Amino acid sequence: MGFVPQPVEKLIEAFAKFPGIGKKTAQRMAFYVLKSNNQQAVQLAEAVMDVKSKILSCTICGGITVEDPCAICSDSKRQENLLCIVEESSDIYVFEKTNSYRGKYHVLGGVLSPLDGIGPDDLTIDNLMNRVNENMEVILATNPSIEGEATALYISRLLKEKGVKSSRLARGIPVGGLLEYIDEATLIRAIEGRVAL
Amino acid sequence: MGFVPQPVEKLIEAFAKFPGIGKKTAQRMAFYVLKSNNQQAVQLAEAVMDVKSKILSCTICGGITVEDPCAICSDSKRQENLLCIVEESSDIYVFEKTNSYRGKYHVLGGVLSPLDGIGPDDLTIDNLMNRVNENMEVILATNPSIEGEATALYISRLLKEKGVKSSRLARGIPVGGLLEYIDEATLIRAIEGRVAL
Repeated sequence: MGFVPQPVEKLIEAFAKFPGIGKKTAQRMAFYVLKSNNQQAVQLAEAVMDVKSKILSCTICGGITVEDPCAICSDSKRQENLLCIVEESSDIYVFEKTNSYRGKYHVLGGVLSPLDGIGPDDLTIDNLMNRVNENMEVILATNPSIEGEATALYISRLLKEKGVKSSRLARGIPVGGLLEYIDEATLIRAIEGRVAL
Repeated sequence: MGFVPQPVEKLIEAFAKFPGIGKKTAQRMAFYVLKSNNQQAVQLAEAVMDVKSKILSCTICGGITVEDPCAICSDSKRQENLLCIVEESSDIYVFEKTNSYRGKYHVLGGVLSPLDGIGPDDLTIDNLMNRVNENMEVILATNPSIEGEATALYISRLLKEKGVKSSRLARGIPVGGLLEYIDEATLIRAIEGRVAL
């Protein structure tokens, strides 16, 4: 896009940095901003800045919030003895959408990844250990990636030393999934974890 | 996402308004802004505002530019007698990327669409008629949609009255396309427009 005026080029570049946004989508987005009215553009710019200025990290769980502690941590109706450990604050809302989890959360802020130089001290594992006690159950809900599994294993060992129960999300066939599209690793887990009827 | 703090929800909504951006992608984008550093967020917000404040519409062709007239209109090396008519200013860059079109452009600002209440007066057809003369060739490069075709037909008639030659982009099989995936309408056009070897 050598002929696109520089301000538009800059906006295309800014959009193209987002995950999942390719160059073509970034172009469409930039031209959409151009076509939209000034008020919409101001709203977008303000929304971007507001997110950076108004959103805090909850000092208890590490989730995002406008008031510290967050709405979930200060909700007395939630189970105090059930803790779901997630990698990122965005993962909290994946669970919240199910409307079925009524425990609390703890955000690790990433996963152990020696290759990227991320060790236990870079995550909120110390905070987690201070939160847990023997009456709690901890669900290790890191992603089923290599790093996620390793992180879950690492934390589960620390929890065991403290006498805290931990569990991992069930692996198996997704609801609505077709057997012919399931990968072997998942199918093996589904067989191993088969449930008696 | 009922539990997402309001500033984040607002940003998700702002992103979800973009064409081609679904709710999930908008969520990922908003959380990406949250995770990115302040400088990146400022850059994005500024890029959005800059596009609205610095970009003008070229008074000759209607394309976007920072200086009026635009770089293409003021380029003396480009053919004065070849004019490519496009719907939107973004279409100009689709042609520019080919590096093979050396004429000038005219942006209509949309297409005729009686259902949406868009008539000839809402487009830059008057400007176009003032630009053309009998020594020019006009390429009607509106999209091959119903509205695009109707708009091209409408303008071609006006041009004919003025004695100006007009043409339409060739329809046929895309380069690299497979015959089995080509729709019937395109194949009919490709047969009709077959080229002698």
